[in-house]
Order: sequence, then structure tokens, then C-alpha cells
Amino acid sequence: MAKEKKLVEAITSMEEDFAQWYTDVVKKAELVDYSSVKGCMVIKPAGYAIWENIQKELDRRFKETGVENVYMPMFIPESLLQREKDHVEGFAPEVAWVTHGGLNELQERMCVRPTSETLFCDFYAREIQSYRDLPKLYNQWCSVVRWEKETRPFLRSREFLWQEGHTAHATAEEAKERTIQMLNVYADFCEEVLAMPVVKGQKTEKEKFAGAEATYTIEALMHDGKALQSGTSHNFGDGFAKAFGIQFTDKDNKLKHVYQTSWGMTTRLIGAIIMVHGDNSGLVLPPRIAPTQVMIIPIMQKKEGVLEKAEELRGLLASNYRVKVDDSDKSPGWKFSEQEMRGIPIRIEIGPKDIEANQGVIVRRDTREKIVVSLDELQTKVGEVLEQIQHDMFERAKAHREEHTVVAKNWDEFKEAIAEQRGFVKAMWCGCKECEEAIKEETTATTRCMPFEQENLGETCVHCGKPAKAMVYFGKAY
Amino acid sequence: MAKEKKLVEAITSMEEDFAQWYTDVVKKAELVDYSSVKGCMVIKPAGYAIWENIQKELDRRFKETGVENVYMPMFIPESLLQREKDHVEGFAPEVAWVTHGGLNELQERMCVRPTSETLFCDFYAREIQSYRDLPKLYNQWCSVVRWEKETRPFLRSREFLWQEGHTAHATAEEAKERTIQMLNVYADFCEEVLAMPVVKGQKTEKEKFAGAEATYTIEALMHDGKALQSGTSHNFGDGFAKAFGIQFTDKDNKLKHVYQTSWGMTTRLIGAIIMVHGDNSGLVLPPRIAPTQVMIIPIMQKKEGVLEKAEELRGLLASNYRVKVDDSDKSPGWKFSEQEMRGIPIRIEIGPKDIEANQGVIVRRDTREKIVVSLDELQTKVGEVLEQIQHDMFERAKAHREEHTVVAKNWDEFKEAIAEQRGFVKAMWCGCKECEEAIKEETTATTRCMPFEQENLGETCVHCGKPAKAMVYFGKAY
Repeated sequence: MAKEKKLVEAITSMEEDFAQWYTDVVKKAELVDYSSVKGCMVIKPAGYAIWENIQKELDRRFKETGVENVYMPMFIPESLLQREKDHVEGFAPEVAWVTHGGLNELQERMCVRPTSETLFCDFYAREIQSYRDLPKLYNQWCSVVRWEKETRPFLRSREFLWQEGHTAHATAEEAKERTIQMLNVYADFCEEVLAMPVVKGQKTEKEKFAGAEATYTIEALMHDGKALQSGTSHNFGDGFAKAFGIQFTDKDNKLKHVYQTSWGMTTRLIGAIIMVHGDNSGLVLPPRIAPTQVMIIPIMQKKEGVLEKAEELRGLLASNYRVKVDDSDKSPGWKFSEQEMRGIPIRIEIGPKDIEANQGVIVRRDTREKIVVSLDELQTKVGEVLEQIQHDMFERAKAHREEHTVVAKNWDEFKEAIAEQRGFVKAMWCGCKECEEAIKEETTATTRCMPFEQENLGETCVHCGKPAKAMVYFGKAY
Repeated sequence: MAKEKKLVEAITSMEEDFAQWYTDVVKKAELVDYSSVKGCMVIKPAGYAIWENIQKELDRRFKETGVENVYMPMFIPESLLQREKDHVEGFAPEVAWVTHGGLNELQERMCVRPTSETLFCDFYAREIQSYRDLPKLYNQWCSVVRWEKETRPFLRSREFLWQEGHTAHATAEEAKERTIQMLNVYADFCEEVLAMPVVKGQKTEKEKFAGAEATYTIEALMHDGKALQSGTSHNFGDGFAKAFGIQFTDKDNKLKHVYQTSWGMTTRLIGAIIMVHGDNSGLVLPPRIAPTQVMIIPIMQKKEGVLEKAEELRGLLASNYRVKVDDSDKSPGWKFSEQEMRGIPIRIEIGPKDIEANQGVIVRRDTREKIVVSLDELQTKVGEVLEQIQHDMFERAKAHREEHTVVAKNWDEFKEAIAEQRGFVKAMWCGCKECEEAIKEETTATTRCMPFEQENLGETCVHCGKPAKAMVYFGKAY
């Protein structure tokens, strides 16, 4: 029992220290390990399997909209990075530079891609000649590098995994539509698969991507009341096309610049899953993304027939669910703690008495509810319970967000709400960068987005009192 | 017709200039584009889709043997790379060095991984304490960088995509078994999926991986008689474990070093597919790896009902095969050329007269055979023809290899066979590095492998006349 206690005790409670709780979960659920490369992480099998499921689901959704995958070089020559002014200003301070190849110094240094707009533009300038070549709907799965000073597993690391979509279109309208379309793909994925409600909206000028005309975002609320930007979609207009000379001959025989978009999601999503759904026993994974959905745990497994029955049930369930048997030497209690720590949505306990009664016990990870079920109905019941968990997790996360979204009608209310970190603060804003910066300086809260679903909460800016232009979600953010 | 002629004429014939033919195919089949980053390639959708299918098939086979995926950092601190003496000597001359992060010079420079043995060892040294932690069967899919001087798309580029498996075991026997097991996975994959026969064997001391105790390889023969190393599997013994201090407490309570393996396959395989199966009309893809297996090409598509019928057939076939309709404005002849250039295994021609007769014409890419088939039997027939193509492609490639594998009993025969580039040359060898180097210097042929299936072709070394130790496959290689 000493060992079992250790596993559970090793997690700091989230109410006591949320940051430490997060670190404990990523370590104890064996999602990552720190590496000898400062600021970079090792993603372990349990973490990478979640990423594989995210990839599979997103990739399928991308392809349904006509997107094709490609692969671009990981290096960007300095002159290429500098081609678009805003873009280089945004990224140059945080890139890693390669200066030597083999034993020789390079004539021109190259950075490891922090994002690949410049490479795609360079490629599109060669590939696109005619309206017949449009649209180009390309995506790549890769890793990128940003030389961050402070790092945390999944949330901010010097190297992370992501996908970056880059499209080129004949018209501004089509580019705008694609930007919103992909934001919707992201939002649907988060809500349907990750059981994570998101607010869709537009970033302010200050917060938009370096080089973009407009940036759209989905913002999620973590358990501690902080916001997490979970996916972004950028409309570039023809800014990059002009900088890179990407032109095509249109149907009217005129030479025109293309309109472009880009959009990305990263391994940060795994951090979001942890912080939206986790509890003081560890990770809680939504069934649709869980690498293992069902863990069968035999009780008194040395008794004749128990392991055989467990294996029989695994075989039965394996055609519809991702299921494993824990037949290790550990005690059932230890196995329960592990299954809980790893966030496996369901465990099935099965022992000699259950077998005699032709039943098993389904235990939900999210509520710990125990459901005794006849083995004849196990297949159906497991499906129902998984669906129910997926549904309930979304509803709970949504209720949490609603409880933690407050309206601030004046500056005192705003300061108080932020100081207590109640969650999202909805407030009216004048649209000025100066006001936005002052709010950040005074409270550390940033504009998360101007939501598509605008509400009129008053006529004046919560900070300066000038006429309001938009309702904004504010919050402290990861 | 002028344009159609251009598409076909643009390929150099392989008999005239094989290297140029290869370059033409990768460009005209739209597999890659040259990038602005010297020595790196852009993998375009048609090329990347082949890689995705390779990944899917290999990944499934790996997981069936218990392998799990992880992700390691892309950077290796210089001190870590230097830990194993042979390894650093092998790789240091060809790595790219990162010296600056953001605006600051790094205290210690890091290379971009050329391979990740050192990172996995560093990780395993922390992860492995007890026999209970073994075996570790990890793999990662990523890109690696080697600063090559001469590059060719897929075959040799400064950055390429691959998978690298890294395992750790309690005993030398288990490591040896795993090395051979993965070589067999590679060989089966090449033969069953890529329709590419391979020779399995062991590399000589001179040709083995930097730091390995033994390297095993699968070698394939290209259409021009050159060999291509298509996958390798390395047994490290406990060499790396000793250099990195990877120790575990065994069941007998003694502290022991682990035994390790690594094994990899790369985007080079796409080059192999091109050079084993391609012809003077372009790419020929084995059905099991082809991103599109069937292209339906409507004839007189503006006539009523033709496009509808084509779409109906697509819908019918889509549940079992990867199928598309080419309903573009191009002429049927142009579409045929494109389908051939891209190596799509089957096209189905369907026009008004066919529809009237309730039939379609299946045309095989590999043999150009035309098969008239009733639309009622289309579903079944397409399956049969795809299987037949897969089978025939393997048999043709095997026959080609057998025709181009010659025995050299003496040095004159050897020199003649290599000079005429007849293919693999089987010969006896004394086992001395000096002899191996002399053979390479005099003929440019290298030892490809000492095949598992040894034959006794004589008692003396083909070069020096001393007693022979092994039968070796020699060849000029990519």
C-alpha cells in the first residue's frame, strides 16, 4: 500500500497550486519528459498517442475540405525571412540560426522555421501562373522552433509539433471564406472531439499575426480561469503575394496577385485537454481522443478463469473500442490509480464473483460512478457510457466557462474580476491600441478576441470611457 | 494535340539517359519541386501522399510488434553528440550547426539531428532503472539533416523524412532478434506493398553504421542496374549503453547495461519505387501504395449522361478503392498521358457508346492492356486487376533482378560485369577491408551485403585469391 499511496499523493491538488498540479500531471501521466535540450520536451508514448489521434481527426477534416499535405524544408534562408517586413519583425527575435553546415560556415545563415509562410510564398511564386492553378490548399505536419525564454511542457516550448495550412486564392472573398471555414473546422473539432467549448472571434490589431490582415482565434477557458488560445486562422489579403510576387493570369487575361491564408493548431492542445478536464487524480481524457478508452482490470487475477475472462472481454470489445487489459503484477488498487492518473475514460473491474454472476463493473473516470452490467450487454453499455462521458465532459466544461465568464460594466468591476481571476471578462472597448496596452499594464489581462457573437453591454469603453466599438473577451492567458 | 505531345516528349527515355529520365519523372509526375534552400526539396501533394501511405503501412506493422511512437527534440547539444566515439566521427562532418538562439549566441552549439541515437540514449539513461522497464520499443517519425554536397530528390537530400526506431533490451539475444525482426518487417513491406524484391543481408565492417556492432540491410536493384540500400537495422550491443551509462537492476539484483538496436526507412523509398517500376511514360505505382488507384476518364464528357455515369461509377468504387474522376476540360488523350505520367495503376474509359453497351474499358498502367468489362462486374473486376498488377509488378521486378544478378568467379569477370553495369555481382570475398577498398577504387563497386542466403561460389577471394570467408553482393550504388 505504501507504493500506491505514493502515486496518488505525488500530485499537488489543483486548488493549492495549479501550476504544480499541471506539472505533476504531465509527469505522472507519463506524457512528457524533460530533455537535455533546454526548453525542449520529449513526448512520451502516452502523450504522442494523443497527438496521433488529434492528427488523424484533424487531417481527415482538412482533407474533406479539399486540403492536400505537402512538406517544405525546415530551413529558411535569412533573405527569404526578410521579404515581408512585419513578418520578419515578429519572428526574427525568436528564431534559432544555423550558421555552419558540416565543417564550413554558410554563405548565408538560415533559421529553423518558426512558421513557413515565407517558404510557401516562395514556392507559390513558382507554382502559380494561371487561374487554373488556383486555389492551392496545402497543409504540412511538422515541428517548428521559437526561442522562448520561459517554457512549459505543451504550452510553450522551444520546439513544438503542429500543422500549418497555407492557401492561395484568386479573390479576397474566397480567402476570407477559407479563413473562417478553417476556424470553424478547429472549433468543431475542439467541441466535438476534445469536449472543449471555445469562443470564436477576431484578434485585435495588436494581437494579430505578424504580416496578417486579420487573425481569427478560438479561445478556451482553463480550469484555473486562465484563457488558452487554441487555434488561429489568418487572412493575409494580398500582402504576402505582393512581397513575394505571387501573380496569376486571371480569366480576364489580367495579371493579378493571389490572396492567402494560413492556419495552425499545435501540441498545445494537449495542454488544453489537461487543464480543461483534469482533476486531482490526474488526467481525464475525452473518449473520442483517448488512446485507450477502456482498461479491463482483473480482480484476484490468479484465480482460475479470471485472466481468461478478461482477455475474452477484451477480444469482444476490441472491434469497436480501444481497449486493454492490465494483467501486470500490481494490486487492483494500484491499477485503479494508474488508470485514473492516465485519464482512461472507463475501467471494467472483473473478478471471480462477477464472473459467477455473469457481470462486470464499469467505472467512469470522470464521475467515478460505478455501473454493474450484465456481460451480455457489455458491448452496448460500454458504447453508451463512452458517449455519455463525452457529452457530460463537454457540458461540464461549458458550465464551468459560463460560471467563469463575467461582465464588467466599469473599470472597478473589471479590475476586481481580473484580480480574482474569475475567468473571461466581457467588456466594451473603444478599439484603441493605447487603451488595450494600458489595460494589460494595469491588470496583466489581454484582449482574447472580439467574439463573432457580439453583445451590447453599454456605449462606452470600460477603460477610457470613450465611445465603444466592440465587445471584447479579456482574460489572463497562457 | 501540340500540348499533349509536349507532356510526353518532355521525358527523356531511360535508355538514353537514366539520370535525366529520373529527374524528368519526379518533376513531371509532380512529386517534388526544387526549393530555394540549397539541397532541400519541396515534397508536393502527389509525392507526399505516397509517403503518407508508406507511413500508414509501416506504422501499423511496427505497432503489431509492440512498438510505440514518441517525439524527441530536433537538436543535439555538441557534448551529447560526442559521447560515443565512433558515432561522432561518422556524423560530425555532415551536420548543420545552430549557434544562435534569437539574438544571443548559444553557450554550447547544437546540431540538427542527423539521427537520434544520442537523444534516445540520454532519455533511456533516465527512464530505465529496472528489468521491469524493459524492453523499450520506441519509434519516431521526423525529418533529419545531413549536409550532403551532391543531392538528388528523394535519393540524397540535405533534409529528408524518415522513421527511426530505437529499442533497449535486457539481453544481447533479444536485441539481436529485434534487429532481424525489424529487417524482416522492412523486407516484407517492400515486397508485399512496394512490389520490390530485396536481398537481405549484413553489411561489412567498413559499411556498417557509425557505432553499431552489426548493420543489416535490404538492397534493391534499380532498373539501370544500380543498387539502392532501402532500409537498415543496427545491433548496437551494449556499446552505446556503456557510453551513456544506461543500466538496469536485473532480476538477479545485479546492475547491467542494456542492449540496443535502431532501424530506419526514409523518403528514399519513393526514389526506389520510381526506379524499380517506372517506364518511359512516367511513374508506375504499385496499387497497394498508389494514392489514387483508379482514374475514371469520361470520353465525350459533354454528352448528356457521361459525367453522371462517371460519377456514379466513382461512388460505386469508392467504398473499396481510392478512385477519382478526371472531369477537367482537357482532352481524353491529355488525361491518358497524365494518368500514365502519375503512375495511377488503372484508368477506366467510359463514353456514350460504352454506356449504351453497359460497359467500360479498364486500361492497365503497367502493361497498357485494355479490358472491356460489363459495368455490372466492374467492382469485382477492378479488384482483380489491381491484385494482378500488384502481383505482376513484383514478378517483373524479380525477373529483372535475376537477369541482372551475375556471378563473378575471377577478377576479369568481376571487372567486366561492373564495367557493363549488369547489376548485382555475386562473388566470394576474403573478409579484408583492404581488399574491399581496393575493389571499390578499381571499379567503383561497393559491397552491398553479405546475404543471409549464402552460396559457395568457390574457395578464394575474387580479388586477392586468398581463402574466401563469405559470398557478397557487389554493385554500384545510389
